[in-house]
Amino acid sequence: MTEKKTRVHNFGAGPAVLPETVLEQARDELLAYGRTGMSVLEMSHRSAAFGEIITGAEADLRRLAGLSDDYAVMFIQGGASMQFAMVPMNLRGEGRSADYVLSGIWSKKALKEAQTLGAARVAGTTEGERFVRVPGKAEIDFDQQAAYLHFTSNNTIYGTQWRSEPEPPAGVPLICDASSDILSRPLDVAKYGLIYAGAQKNLGPAGVVVVVMRRDLLERTPAKLPLMLSYKQMAESRSLYNTPPTFAVYVIGLVLKWLLALGGLAEIARRNEEKAKRLYDAIDGSGGFYRGHALPEHRSLMNVTFRIASEDLEKEFVKNAEAAGLSGLKGHRSVGGLRASIYNALPPAAIDDLVAFMADFQRRKG
Amino acid sequence: MTEKKTRVHNFGAGPAVLPETVLEQARDELLAYGRTGMSVLEMSHRSAAFGEIITGAEADLRRLAGLSDDYAVMFIQGGASMQFAMVPMNLRGEGRSADYVLSGIWSKKALKEAQTLGAARVAGTTEGERFVRVPGKAEIDFDQQAAYLHFTSNNTIYGTQWRSEPEPPAGVPLICDASSDILSRPLDVAKYGLIYAGAQKNLGPAGVVVVVMRRDLLERTPAKLPLMLSYKQMAESRSLYNTPPTFAVYVIGLVLKWLLALGGLAEIARRNEEKAKRLYDAIDGSGGFYRGHALPEHRSLMNVTFRIASEDLEKEFVKNAEAAGLSGLKGHRSVGGLRASIYNALPPAAIDDLVAFMADFQRRKG
Repeated sequence: MTEKKTRVHNFGAGPAVLPETVLEQARDELLAYGRTGMSVLEMSHRSAAFGEIITGAEADLRRLAGLSDDYAVMFIQGGASMQFAMVPMNLRGEGRSADYVLSGIWSKKALKEAQTLGAARVAGTTEGERFVRVPGKAEIDFDQQAAYLHFTSNNTIYGTQWRSEPEPPAGVPLICDASSDILSRPLDVAKYGLIYAGAQKNLGPAGVVVVVMRRDLLERTPAKLPLMLSYKQMAESRSLYNTPPTFAVYVIGLVLKWLLALGGLAEIARRNEEKAKRLYDAIDGSGGFYRGHALPEHRSLMNVTFRIASEDLEKEFVKNAEAAGLSGLKGHRSVGGLRASIYNALPPAAIDDLVAFMADFQRRKG
Repeated sequence: MTEKKTRVHNFGAGPAVLPETVLEQARDELLAYGRTGMSVLEMSHRSAAFGEIITGAEADLRRLAGLSDDYAVMFIQGGASMQFAMVPMNLRGEGRSADYVLSGIWSKKALKEAQTLGAARVAGTTEGERFVRVPGKAEIDFDQQAAYLHFTSNNTIYGTQWRSEPEPPAGVPLICDASSDILSRPLDVAKYGLIYAGAQKNLGPAGVVVVVMRRDLLERTPAKLPLMLSYKQMAESRSLYNTPPTFAVYVIGLVLKWLLALGGLAEIARRNEEKAKRLYDAIDGSGGFYRGHALPEHRSLMNVTFRIASEDLEKEFVKNAEAAGLSGLKGHRSVGGLRASIYNALPPAAIDDLVAFMADFQRRKG
């Protein structure tokens, strides 16, 4: 295949690498899906074929994540940023306040949207330490009356990740932005009231968010809410109130099938740990040439952030890496340095190549 | 190409047929776009390559529609249904009322969303005639103080279309849901305050809406609005406030290039008129076997609705047509009968085949 030779290793933070077999299948079916005689891009969302695609994606997600029927699954447009607004609009309730744990820019943005329309407070933050770690559970000051507690499970910009969930008081649902580590490891969904994840890191292409929500919380949706912003409407219509982003849902379905075939969440977690360990070992074993950004016990298995002594060397690293077919290694502008996003779909061979490149770069410049 | 043989003629109302050359290009680039070494599905929305895609799509839209810089162009998620809410949230203003002209179910839905959050009134409707025509300009009772006037330029379900725009009083911006006839004919944009169109009929795949908005109206956006619902935010960030639906924007870009290569809006209008005329001629020339649903002078060039004497025959028509490779001809459940959606991308050969099938069906059953 000529395509294989021309493909780079994509370490971008999102939209991010997809499994090559998923792309090949999407390509092969692009003009005619199954026996429909049309592309998924052209297919009615009310057709039997698309019905199978969307119910199949939901069923595969339920199987992978072990979701009971107590949870609704929704495919919603607008990205995680729209969820920053939909969560308080649906779940906070009149006159109540919501709690937010801050572990990076994205949780701050979620808080800000919640404060646009009502009361929300900071229950814990590590901003004073420039988010090099996530707050400890004992550092969180819970509001016992909060409508919910919101946190961000993985912080793409800083390369930090929660090892286990914060534990809000009884009756305070836990809400999680899991955009950058959804389905990267087994998850005890029963701890959560709602989990949302923009697809473009671990699930599929940009343009759709997967929302998993405990059904009893659907009753909180207020009556006077535009229908497109209502979880209740979306859940009742099974994401088909209006035309969903059909092609994005289809690609998610292919990714979920790829994950199942691989062995599910336990196996992907094993692979992710192995991939991350090799990269962190390369950083830690560089004698200080490469320095990790996040505190070691808070390191993310999805986004590996690190630095070199000078910004000039970092620029040269990014440029040389790009030339070597290692793409997207520049850190986020707010933190600087380097970042390797190593989501589920990034093949282990990409880690091999990056580690070899890092060693070679150090030999030449160290 | 084996794909060509297996493709059907897609008369579905949306998501709808795309130009085959567009699909072929998307397929050929699916694993590696240009020299990026990655799929558009995997590409950062902040990358240079995607920057060219989205600014190129905007530039081509401006060229096709003759948009001056007085108008902002936005790519927004959530479908037209989200616009039903965003239009009043951004443009109505505190304590004011908006006018809606009803010409079908979609304009009624737009009205209903506007009424969820404030005042909106019916300025004209043909619901009493089951929407077989659009309201006459003289039948519209304008509120001189309305925040805006909203109408739906083409009504997919009934197969009706406005020949020219309603003319609201001076100072009342005209807002149009043009989802099902955008870029099907030349448009005098200067008459409009805002035009929105879900992509999945004439522009591209589902999952993105194109919004064209007179910039002075951006000042109406209230301060306390979630950022994802703010036209002002979307316009200022050039649709890149958060991750846009990148692949959908890319396909729109390909469709716009296809339209430009074809000769632009004057040429596509000529083709659309020719296609529609042949189909309406077949209906009108059937001696009453086929009967058009919409009043002739209100007929849509995009959705041709018609009936046969019995529902059993209609069912048989749909079934036999499907078997003959003519897909999606069943009418909307609220109207019944038959509907051929003949958007820009439907090739003239599809009309040939449908007209021949109709004549044959009549010979066998008439």
